[in-house]
This record gives sequence, structure tokens and C-alpha cells, in this order.
Amino acid sequence: MNFSNSHSTQYSLFQKIEKIRRQKNKVPDTHITLAHGSGGKAMRDLIDDIFIQNFDNPTLSQLEDQARFDLASFIKQGDRLAFTTDSYVVDPLFFPGGDIGTLAINGTVNDLAMSGAKPLYLSCSVILEEGLPVETLRRVAQSMQAAAQKAGVQVVTGDTKVVHRGAADKLFINTSGIGIIPTGVNVSAHNIQPGDAIIINGELGNHGTAILIARGELALDTDIESDCQPLNNLVETILNVCPEVHAMRDATRGGLATVLNEFALGSGVGIRLDEQSIPVREEVKGVCELLGLDPLYLANEGKFVVVVGRENADTVVSAMKSHPAGKDACIIGEVIPSPSGVVFLKTAFGAERIVDMLVGEQLPRIC
Amino acid sequence: MNFSNSHSTQYSLFQKIEKIRRQKNKVPDTHITLAHGSGGKAMRDLIDDIFIQNFDNPTLSQLEDQARFDLASFIKQGDRLAFTTDSYVVDPLFFPGGDIGTLAINGTVNDLAMSGAKPLYLSCSVILEEGLPVETLRRVAQSMQAAAQKAGVQVVTGDTKVVHRGAADKLFINTSGIGIIPTGVNVSAHNIQPGDAIIINGELGNHGTAILIARGELALDTDIESDCQPLNNLVETILNVCPEVHAMRDATRGGLATVLNEFALGSGVGIRLDEQSIPVREEVKGVCELLGLDPLYLANEGKFVVVVGRENADTVVSAMKSHPAGKDACIIGEVIPSPSGVVFLKTAFGAERIVDMLVGEQLPRIC
Repeated sequence: MNFSNSHSTQYSLFQKIEKIRRQKNKVPDTHITLAHGSGGKAMRDLIDDIFIQNFDNPTLSQLEDQARFDLASFIKQGDRLAFTTDSYVVDPLFFPGGDIGTLAINGTVNDLAMSGAKPLYLSCSVILEEGLPVETLRRVAQSMQAAAQKAGVQVVTGDTKVVHRGAADKLFINTSGIGIIPTGVNVSAHNIQPGDAIIINGELGNHGTAILIARGELALDTDIESDCQPLNNLVETILNVCPEVHAMRDATRGGLATVLNEFALGSGVGIRLDEQSIPVREEVKGVCELLGLDPLYLANEGKFVVVVGRENADTVVSAMKSHPAGKDACIIGEVIPSPSGVVFLKTAFGAERIVDMLVGEQLPRIC
Repeated sequence: MNFSNSHSTQYSLFQKIEKIRRQKNKVPDTHITLAHGSGGKAMRDLIDDIFIQNFDNPTLSQLEDQARFDLASFIKQGDRLAFTTDSYVVDPLFFPGGDIGTLAINGTVNDLAMSGAKPLYLSCSVILEEGLPVETLRRVAQSMQAAAQKAGVQVVTGDTKVVHRGAADKLFINTSGIGIIPTGVNVSAHNIQPGDAIIINGELGNHGTAILIARGELALDTDIESDCQPLNNLVETILNVCPEVHAMRDATRGGLATVLNEFALGSGVGIRLDEQSIPVREEVKGVCELLGLDPLYLANEGKFVVVVGRENADTVVSAMKSHPAGKDACIIGEVIPSPSGVVFLKTAFGAERIVDMLVGEQLPRIC
């Protein structure tokens, strides 16, 4: 007698009972419970329902504890791997122009793109507060998938944790990402040289202002939306006309001022900006004046600084202007040999002032 | 006249003032403030002081927004990249046998190792609650570095976010990781076949029990420590004697029962365990009896299931026993052809019961 067969017969009833039991155990919760972070059945159902369904791709659907990729497919696209991570704690979760989901995809896509890399795969790890409506999570996952599709990346691995009510504020997301840097592209703050042009791809401060207004603490009504957008395609456009870009960095937390100070300090050069050429919306200027903020320090989520040799600047700006994410591109300053590590702003009145690194905090939980 | 030189002279005083100002602005905070998440000066100082100092390596020190690696160095080590992510929210932060830092390194190292990959590089993204003692963060970063060294990996990129007091509980960490799978190694739940042996590398339930006791809600005093440890070296030992391992998975949240249910469901097989052969410490059994818990569902942080063809089982177990992380390795069950998707336990009394997936939650914030 084949033991296995006998086993099978013996348990056929068990199997049926088991199936019914599994069905009955399906958790149709409308709110996140601690069980959704247990590693068990409720978590599996939530992952199936929210993440597998939205991020639908063969790598993720394997449900292994890690995603796997052939190195051969990478080698075809370049010679170096870029790897980055960011956690997102923005408050509120939803705001004009985006939500924590679009931010979590675009932020990490952009961190990869700033190295010249083609972003390929992202992870998604969520920390959920007990009591969060499942619909909120679903909406965020849908935003993530829409943003991922727009940026041409896939969410391939993930993790779900749940903490007691009050131990986290609704929802935090971490996305890490990998991308491939094309052979010959070498973008780094260390390449910056005196004489280089400083280029920005558009208006500054929209994200910071949109979040500030979305918090509802100001009785302001404007149509300012976050500039949250993927920049990888624009970066590709730039590298096509100028593979020898010196440096790129997105002006997120700490704004333009922080990026330029990092560049100046990291490369031992000075930077001089021309205030009149820096694009800032009138409404953003107004909010800043009202609150004593400086648009140079306001966060952006779709703006980046490009540093190129002066001889390539016009070519790069005109290529950027042909792209929707760069239509307001312009030169806003230049790299000077000294004083090293200092950023100056030539004001509209012709005076010069030092633009220091941000000390303190303008707007917590901006991203 | 060379404008740049004139510029330099003109600002030599400014430079000195600036230098003094930067010094004065250095934030010697003993507790985390919102400024530490600003993207500005305070954050830069914190990153230098805590992360750069502890994780000291050339990739991280570049302070670019992404780490970069030559694909050529990967190709030498294998043919596939593994990529994984996990967030850690364990409560309390420190417990017998480890802390959130050791957990964050070993957890992600182990997720990579379970694919047969050699773990190489990790990211570290922290969410800090305003008011967290800086010393707590420093201690955790030191643990992370010690664990990373032990596992032979480097932390190469990171992110720091700060939220208001009450918007997170002290400290959450996300680590994502990449590793390289050696050519020829193919470890996947889909390989599991009837007749395969189920092997475990040691005692179950120590981590879950240690956390439970560390919470101090039980008036229990035991010497049970978390089993938190890196498994990549043991995995390498196994693959050396048996490259054709079918499947591996670490029994973390949801415990052994969850891993085996995932295997049974994913591979369309049944699994039969022998209760008497499953190693569980008497103290852990005692705590479980006291609280109505089941050691099969308790979380582990250094235990994993290895599934191999029956013909290789003894070789693998004896190789495991030669390694400190596998000294209590043993066969605990077998894969049966049916009923598909069901895990059985043959109890000490000779009866059989179904070991279902975890429904509900035994111990929230166990990792």
C-alpha cells in the first residue's frame, strides 16, 4: 500500500474542512489591525489585496523574501549599479499634486536618476498605524503604481509592519531602489569646476508651499500644487545631448540652498547665484513673505540642479526646455573658484549675501 | 584684473565670519530635534557624528544620494542580484541578545541569504521621534556596525527622517539589501518535492520569548536570549556540501508554522512534522504553556528551514552541525505529496493535527 495515497484519502475530508476554514478566516477588515502585521494569514490577505494586485509583476508575485534579477540584463544597460533609500513621513498623506505614494516612488526614482542611472526596481516597505482605513492604504498603493508606471519602474519586493495606535502617525513608507548607470556617464559633485553653469529645471518651492497650505493651519487658498514628478526621463534627455554633465542633485528637503551648499563644500568651490533668474511663483513668494520663509530653502519634489561646463550650458537648457519636466529650465548661477564652500546670492538690488546651509527646521515632515 | 581674485580678497573677512558662524551653529544636542530631519546643517552633523563615523566606508563617505558599484565586481561573484527590504519596529529597542540595530542588519542579511545570495550592501533609513536621546541612536548604530562586520556586509547609503514627539515610537529602521547569487545555485519554494526532508538549524521561539520577557509585563525571570544572528555564513557552508538545496526560508514573524504553510501552499505539497524532533527549550515551552502560545508560531531571528532531497539530508545536517549557527540542526519533518497546502504535526502522543497559518497576532512589534 502506498502510504502517500492512503494519506491522501484519509485527509480528503480534512482538506475540505480546511478550505472552508481558510475561507471563513479571510479577514475583510475595513481598518488595519495588528494581525495585518503578524506575518500570518491576515497579512498575506492584505498583501494580496493591496500590493500584489496593484504592483502586479512577475518578480513580486513570486512572493519570495527577495527579488532576483539576472546580472546579464543589467550589463546590457550600463556598467554600474546605483542603490538608494528614502523613508517618507509626509503630513498630510494627501496634498494638492500628489500623496505619500507618488512621493515615495518619485523621490527614490529621482535619487537614482541624479547619478545618471536608469531607475529599474523599487522596494516598498510600509509601517502602518493600527486603525488606518484599508481604503487609505489602497489609494496610496494605487498612486504608487501609477507613479511607478509613469517613471518606468517596478515595485518588486516589500514588507508590512503594523504598530499600535499612537505608535506611528497613520502611514510611513520606505522605498529603496536600484538602477543602472550607462557606461561613460560620470555624474558626481566632485566634478564641479569653476566656470561651470548652474541650471535649474523650473519653479522653486511649490512642494513646500503646497504641503504648508494642505495642513490647513493657514487661512490661505491658492492653486499651488506640489511639483512631485519623476525626473529620470528628463535626465536621459540631458545625457543624450551632454553625456559629460558634471553634477546633478534634486532640491528636496532643505531646498536649492542646501544642494548648492553641499556642492560648494564637497567640491571646494564657491557658487554665485543671480536672484532675478531663479524662477519662483508669485504666490510662493507671497506665502514666504507672509511667514518669513525663504523660497531657496523650501522643499521641491520635481526640481533638480544640473551643473555643466559653461560651453554646454545653452545646449542643455534648450534640451531641457523641450521636455515637459524642464520647460522652465534656466541658468541661475555659476561656479567660482573661491571663496571655497560659500554660496552667494546677487540680489535684485545688486547686493550680495551669503546663502548658508539651513540651520534649524522650516517645515517638518515635508517628505 | 582677475575678477575671481578680487572676489576672493573681498570676501576673506566674510569667510572668517562664516567659519566662526558654522562652528557656532554646530548642534551639540543630546536629544533628537526636528532640525535633525531638516536636510540642513543639524542633519548633516548628526549623519557625520552617528552614521559616517560608525559605518565608515568609502562608498558611504561619498555622501552622494545613492551608492554606486561596478557590475564587473558582481559578475565575479555570481550571475543574479538579490534585492530585499524590511522595516524594523521592535519594542523594546534593546532586549537580551540584541537590539533593533542587530535585528535590522541580521534580518535583511538573512532575507538575502535565504536565496543563496552572498549579502553585500545594505541601506539604512531611520525614522526618529523628536526627543529620542542621541545616545540611544549612537548605541543602535554601533550595534548595526558590529552586526554588519560580523555578517561581512557594508552599510552604503542612508536616510534620516524626524517626526514630532508622539508621531512615532522612538525609532524605526528600514534596511534594504543587495547580494549576489552564485551561478548554479537555485533556491526557491517552487523546487520543493514530495520526499524532501525539512531541516531546522536549532531551537525555536527564543527571540519571541526574549522580547516578551523584555517587555516586563510578565513577572518572569529567565536567561533566554534572542537568537538574532547572521545566517549567510551557515548558508554558504550548506551550499558548499549541497549546491542543490531546494528551498530555504528564515522563520521570523509567524514562526516555523508560517514558513511551512507558505511552502506547502506555494509548492502544492503537504508537510508532516514530527513534534518530538522539533528543538524547543524547556523555558520557552514553559512560557508558552503559561500564556497559551505555541512555539511553532513564535518569531525567531536566527533560525531557518532548509528543504533538501532526502538523499542529501544527512550530509546537510552534519555540515550544519559543524557551524556555530547550526550546531543543533536536525530533521524535523518531510514533504508529502498530498493533501496539498496542508501542514500536519505528529504530536508526542502519536496523534496528528493540522498546523494552520497564523490567524490574528500573537506578539505585535516582535521585529
